[in-house]
Amino acid sequence: MGRWEPEARARLERAAMELYGERGYEQTTVAEIANRAGLTERTFFRHFADKREVLFGGAGALKDVLVNGVLGAPASASPIEAIAAGLEGAGAMFQPRHELAMHRQAIIDANTELQERELIKLATLATALSEALQQRGVRDSIANLVAETGMAIFKIAFARWIDPANRSDLSQIIHESLTELKSIF
Amino acid sequence: MGRWEPEARARLERAAMELYGERGYEQTTVAEIANRAGLTERTFFRHFADKREVLFGGAGALKDVLVNGVLGAPASASPIEAIAAGLEGAGAMFQPRHELAMHRQAIIDANTELQERELIKLATLATALSEALQQRGVRDSIANLVAETGMAIFKIAFARWIDPANRSDLSQIIHESLTELKSIF
Repeated sequence: MGRWEPEARARLERAAMELYGERGYEQTTVAEIANRAGLTERTFFRHFADKREVLFGGAGALKDVLVNGVLGAPASASPIEAIAAGLEGAGAMFQPRHELAMHRQAIIDANTELQERELIKLATLATALSEALQQRGVRDSIANLVAETGMAIFKIAFARWIDPANRSDLSQIIHESLTELKSIF
Repeated sequence: MGRWEPEARARLERAAMELYGERGYEQTTVAEIANRAGLTERTFFRHFADKREVLFGGAGALKDVLVNGVLGAPASASPIEAIAAGLEGAGAMFQPRHELAMHRQAIIDANTELQERELIKLATLATALSEALQQRGVRDSIANLVAETGMAIFKIAFARWIDPANRSDLSQIIHESLTELKSIF
């Protein structure tokens, strides 16, 4: 791909988000997205398999950040500390994309199919986190429990972060949620 | 409904589970289920909206048990103790249905659409648990966090319970998982 391509991807993403927000996800076509971005449908399909992938194309990068955070935690880190490292890496990745994340969430909240896809994405990420913990030598029953709890924390922290009243960084909210969970036991 | 109806429902459920296991969920028709149960399609539709509901029709009862467990916990119970009461109620409800639960899970694990439906069911239950906690006066951010964590524990405990090697009761496994989670923080 030529060096103009990243810009085309960002333009398509922005155009899609605008249109999903304005007229709804269901009602928006790929032709309209390409048109709004001043690009061709062919260019759209070089970047995204379909209009849903504009919203979920980042799942692979998120998974990598989570897994690398877990695997990169010090050998002395407990399972929950390793998960915290992964979650905080994800926090840092999302932080500059706050506006986009708020916008994306509003689109997803308005559409049942997209909500289902989001749940599947979170379940897939929990599995990836569990596998990363198992690579660190954590036994599978503990790994599954900690990974599921970690994704529950991520989900809650993410919802707090994109609340319009919020002023804190995602990493900070994740840290607070972990502390909060610890305190309630 | 006449007093023979509960038996008809159980027969339809058993017939459906057998057929889903034998030939796959996708390949089974309502006509075949009714036929296997020695009943009519019309009777099937008096009990279930469609063939998927045979697998998910218990979600309402599960939700009631969880919510009533949370609401019925002593006023002095902490949020996590209230959730534990709900989960242990669900454990008692499932315990006599161990064989059925194993069978059902194998059917769900073999079908992507059913896995998605199961995730949606769990998300709905987490929301119901959070609302029950809020009714107890728990503020929403804590309620969401504890409810999501509770469902994560339930999911893990359930998977352990239906493992063929397991010999423990679901309530006991839920209790152990809660203790385990507490210990890793």
